[in-house]
Amino acid sequence: MANPTAAMLVIGDEILSGRTRDANMHFLAGALTKHGINLREVRIVSDDRSSIVSAVKSLSQSYDHLFTSGGIGPTHDDITADCIAEAFGQSIDIREDAYALLAAHYERTNKEFNAARQRMARIPEHATLIDNPVSVAPGFTVQNTHVMAGVPSVFQAMVEAVLPQLSAGAPLHSKSLRIERGEGDIAGPLGKFAARFPELSIGSYPFQENGLYGANIVLRGENSDMLSEGFAELERLFADS
Amino acid sequence: MANPTAAMLVIGDEILSGRTRDANMHFLAGALTKHGINLREVRIVSDDRSSIVSAVKSLSQSYDHLFTSGGIGPTHDDITADCIAEAFGQSIDIREDAYALLAAHYERTNKEFNAARQRMARIPEHATLIDNPVSVAPGFTVQNTHVMAGVPSVFQAMVEAVLPQLSAGAPLHSKSLRIERGEGDIAGPLGKFAARFPELSIGSYPFQENGLYGANIVLRGENSDMLSEGFAELERLFADS
Repeated sequence: MANPTAAMLVIGDEILSGRTRDANMHFLAGALTKHGINLREVRIVSDDRSSIVSAVKSLSQSYDHLFTSGGIGPTHDDITADCIAEAFGQSIDIREDAYALLAAHYERTNKEFNAARQRMARIPEHATLIDNPVSVAPGFTVQNTHVMAGVPSVFQAMVEAVLPQLSAGAPLHSKSLRIERGEGDIAGPLGKFAARFPELSIGSYPFQENGLYGANIVLRGENSDMLSEGFAELERLFADS
Repeated sequence: MANPTAAMLVIGDEILSGRTRDANMHFLAGALTKHGINLREVRIVSDDRSSIVSAVKSLSQSYDHLFTSGGIGPTHDDITADCIAEAFGQSIDIREDAYALLAAHYERTNKEFNAARQRMARIPEHATLIDNPVSVAPGFTVQNTHVMAGVPSVFQAMVEAVLPQLSAGAPLHSKSLRIERGEGDIAGPLGKFAARFPELSIGSYPFQENGLYGANIVLRGENSDMLSEGFAELERLFADS
């Protein structure tokens, strides 16, 4: 049986403007690979209603799971929850369960539970809440779509809350071999090798370091015996490199 | 006149598997912002023919420019050039101009110009070549789509070759203010501020550092006087923070 597939949607202008480098994508990719879920596509869009709604519709229909990050805070540019509700044709309003969590938190920390903070209790009607052990304001799941915060510490905690609830696939094993020869020398034998091991995914990642050309060849597969066999063969093939 | 828009398509399994963190996206985002081109969307897809073709069609039609990275090397998983040809309905074969560049390079460096390396001369029929001062194998432009290598040093050199040929927009200026208060306290006044300065794009990027909650407020705009006026107002608004 093939492993479940997933996509990620990153919402916000930070990465698109070059202001920050992504952290959440890298974390999610690693966590999904460990859990046996195959991350197949990532999209990054800005805080624009129609862009978000159409990406959510397209990705939630094309893959088994969709994970989103960003846009669920209290400020004017946080429009993700409303966009998710629109994409799934659900109504959205302040929901009692989320409101109660937040009200208790702000009472405990002696901060004003003002209108902006109350916006974080806006949750689509049929969503399930995702626990936020870092800063309380919850994420949520609608059908196959898991909506999480953009702040890395919160995003990571939410991923760890969601993943154990999802069916795991066969974990994907991988082994990599560094070859200090240009890809042009490697490509011929590697292509023949790939044709002999169709069950393995075989990637060639070229590098250039101080004028030295080479490539890391990465083998991936669900069957660890097959992977070991393939890797031994790969080592023999490039023993002179 | 609004600035030109752009999208980026990253092709390959490296980022999706969690193996590496992106570098090219961050470089391109910064370079486009400086050039006054508005990066609006990024997609990352794996080395899968139908995924690449449909992303190229969709993004090249939706934005003024599309920049791609990855998948133009000599190995079996490098299928970008063929996918671009398919997306634009052009034929593709080894092209004389690219072949001549590569043949001269391998003769000079005394390396075999084998079948794998000759694949790098496969260029869609109506494409214009993009210079590669690092490792010779060219990128290419088809209509509004600029196809570049994934190795960061080569990608950057190709971006620097392409950008001067594209109409520049008004450079986007930005200023940011760090506020050490939770977004929930900032959100109300910030929303009113945003409504008063509709010409500015105003983002709130929350952070959490050692238990301290805060946000970086980033103002962006084409008109630098307007930006300065808005920023002074923003500083007054949060002078107590």
